[in-house]
Amino acid sequence: MICLKFFDSKLMKFINNNLRYLQTIMSTTKPTIPKGMRDFGSQVMFRRNYIFETVKRAFECYGYAPIETPTMENIQTLTGKYGDEGDRLIFKVLNSGDYLSKATLDENTTSKSLTKQIVEKALRYDLTVPFARFVVQNRNDITFPFKRYQMQNVWRADRPQKGRYREFYQCDADVIGTDSLLCEVELVQLYDDVFTKLNIPNVDIYINNRKVLSGMVELMGASDLFDDVVIALDKLDKIGIDKVKEEMESKGVKKEALSILDTFLNTTNVGDLSSLLENSATGKKGLEELQFVINSVNNLGLQSANLIFDITLARGLNYYTGCILEVKANDVAIGSIGGGGRYDDLTSIFGLKDVSGVGISFGIDRIYIVMEELGLFPDNIDVSTKVMFANFGEQEAAFCLPLLKQLRSAGISSELYPKKSKMKKQMSYANNKCVQFVIMVGEDEMESGILSIKNMESGEQSNLNITDLIKELS
Amino acid sequence: MICLKFFDSKLMKFINNNLRYLQTIMSTTKPTIPKGMRDFGSQVMFRRNYIFETVKRAFECYGYAPIETPTMENIQTLTGKYGDEGDRLIFKVLNSGDYLSKATLDENTTSKSLTKQIVEKALRYDLTVPFARFVVQNRNDITFPFKRYQMQNVWRADRPQKGRYREFYQCDADVIGTDSLLCEVELVQLYDDVFTKLNIPNVDIYINNRKVLSGMVELMGASDLFDDVVIALDKLDKIGIDKVKEEMESKGVKKEALSILDTFLNTTNVGDLSSLLENSATGKKGLEELQFVINSVNNLGLQSANLIFDITLARGLNYYTGCILEVKANDVAIGSIGGGGRYDDLTSIFGLKDVSGVGISFGIDRIYIVMEELGLFPDNIDVSTKVMFANFGEQEAAFCLPLLKQLRSAGISSELYPKKSKMKKQMSYANNKCVQFVIMVGEDEMESGILSIKNMESGEQSNLNITDLIKELS
Repeated sequence: MICLKFFDSKLMKFINNNLRYLQTIMSTTKPTIPKGMRDFGSQVMFRRNYIFETVKRAFECYGYAPIETPTMENIQTLTGKYGDEGDRLIFKVLNSGDYLSKATLDENTTSKSLTKQIVEKALRYDLTVPFARFVVQNRNDITFPFKRYQMQNVWRADRPQKGRYREFYQCDADVIGTDSLLCEVELVQLYDDVFTKLNIPNVDIYINNRKVLSGMVELMGASDLFDDVVIALDKLDKIGIDKVKEEMESKGVKKEALSILDTFLNTTNVGDLSSLLENSATGKKGLEELQFVINSVNNLGLQSANLIFDITLARGLNYYTGCILEVKANDVAIGSIGGGGRYDDLTSIFGLKDVSGVGISFGIDRIYIVMEELGLFPDNIDVSTKVMFANFGEQEAAFCLPLLKQLRSAGISSELYPKKSKMKKQMSYANNKCVQFVIMVGEDEMESGILSIKNMESGEQSNLNITDLIKELS
Repeated sequence: MICLKFFDSKLMKFINNNLRYLQTIMSTTKPTIPKGMRDFGSQVMFRRNYIFETVKRAFECYGYAPIETPTMENIQTLTGKYGDEGDRLIFKVLNSGDYLSKATLDENTTSKSLTKQIVEKALRYDLTVPFARFVVQNRNDITFPFKRYQMQNVWRADRPQKGRYREFYQCDADVIGTDSLLCEVELVQLYDDVFTKLNIPNVDIYINNRKVLSGMVELMGASDLFDDVVIALDKLDKIGIDKVKEEMESKGVKKEALSILDTFLNTTNVGDLSSLLENSATGKKGLEELQFVINSVNNLGLQSANLIFDITLARGLNYYTGCILEVKANDVAIGSIGGGGRYDDLTSIFGLKDVSGVGISFGIDRIYIVMEELGLFPDNIDVSTKVMFANFGEQEAAFCLPLLKQLRSAGISSELYPKKSKMKKQMSYANNKCVQFVIMVGEDEMESGILSIKNMESGEQSNLNITDLIKELS
């Protein structure tokens, strides 16, 4: 629908008749990309790769091996796994070819009923469900416990806002096929290691245990309302304690149970839970797990992050059954930059029962924002070309080519400006590309083999032959 | 539609009424992925990453900087750029929400007419068109000449077959914003460099020039049939010269022109083109370009690949205007493993005229097949964990944790088996994961601090304290 401030019936008719043509012109003159999606230019790419590489090296150092799953999954693999809201946000891929020939259309056809007939595939919504599908499908080839990492993009048809995109990356590490709490200990260390290497200060890793929450809800006499209580509790940060209680009551939690809730919420010391949970077997089990993880981590010591027990930490996803984790960078207000937990039965949705796993996720896009706001990216990571030969003409260029080849053979990133141009233009190219050294080769240099080298940062000029230059730069 | 070999109306009714439920059961018991798509397990990932890393390092060494574009483009960015066949093969993403509310359905609705109403986005079909869109959209922030590389997946709804998938990777390097032939020279060197580093033998880089072909077609008196002649010529490998000529004649090429074609096709020496193209200005220009590139490359010398002039090389894509390249690995029959060329006006489809560019592409999935068939992957690339501590119980594990931390701090990839289990099980885990050293810590080792270390390859046993072990492995 096009709305114009003035009304001109002839123009309106022209526009309506030529809508597609006009759209083509528009798209020709100013191409755009879909909302919530991003182009990454080179500087951003260098910085993103720096984060990815750091996380990847840590994953591999801890014995996690990479896997990748396809961008598209069969739609039934994804639907029903993320709640109704999630199902709505899954991007669906139209069947190829004459898809309507197999569909029935009538006056009752709705978007929902049509989708079932014309869509068989959908885009990855997270890495966890495809991972569970992968494990079940490949269970005969996998040696358990299986430590895998996965760094891939996911898509959600969410309303875009700051730090929330429709295409973004997740970096997950999971161990599946063991209930050993040493995995939880390791994953906390892994968080600490990565954030230490990235130099992000004031990182808090919050820890809680779903069984402790379960015990609490049991003591509140609201075990059948566990999901509701957890969902309400998860909103504490956003809506405050009064609203949380209101929501719980509206779901059926009794008023007297809320004082038990208060007692728990006032607990900041894990030890104090011991007496509180005395009468809940599940709660005691959870407390044991919690204490083992916290004590082990404390004995080993963390490098820069803090591990903090937080009874209010609930995590919305309902497949968590044990330890739960969430990470915040206190110096930037952006919400959590990581989270995870133990799931005792995730693969059962694909028919493989009793396989316990635990995993954590790094929110790369938010980590990027934190590092950018705090100015934490090292200086030298966006250097692409180290050495550039200026171009003074065909003969000079021909002279430079074998030298360029020698530099590249030595692994020194280098290039020759492709065409003779004004020096100013060539130098500005070098500047924009953060080139560190510009080599000027004219008649004298061609005769002597001694190159004039300009250090672009200090402005210093030096003279070296190619062998010495390579030695200098290697 | 379900077809059964026997007919049972009750069963049929049950099936129809419970279709979704049955599908859920089916999907529960045996999850699958869409056809033409792949899961990559860890061993394959290590090998793929080895190729990606090699290509990436070469790209950066030659001064190319990375960019990435989103998975989805507005559909009008993609349609009309790859021919009718291409348009058909583009994967389309259904609009989110109640998309039908904005569509008009009636008895005349076809798949094609409906698609226009319910689809605004589509998946990347190659890297070239999104790159052109990127350049035009960001032209004010880009310093030209712009040397970029891009390594991303693309999607095509093609019929899957060996070496052809519906999701696959492309690795492209392009220079845009200069017509300097030094770029062509550099890209040939880049091909040679990558295939040398990957150790792929017998690689031939075929080269031709569209202007030379243009000159030939001009002399055949068929300039207005250039596209038809090139498309027919492109099939020479597959259908043979007689069929190629037949096709040309059917398109309107005169019989007497075909003898000129023969003369050209019998030319294997670039020099011989000189007299043939005497009367075509375009042809002579093309020949000059061709000779400059071939001579420059020959002067510099290639490391392992051969550069071969091939007048029959045509390349189907019609945006090429100068030098064209195609790469084959002679030892494996899989078709081309790379290709590229110069395009003088690609960005004009998005409204930016007169920007010449040239680029090459690496077919990663096919390179993988070549390397696998020839056994070229180095031995050590699928090692994830170098050192594993066996687990003999809680106390032993607790003793190992600080040692594990020290190893990891030294950058040595290591892990502790997460739970006490039978030694056989732990050793088989270590074997499957290609672990190089297994450390056994029992009572004696805890007392002395001297660790028992088993070299999994040689079977040798040694005894070292942690400091010496780290020295040994660093």
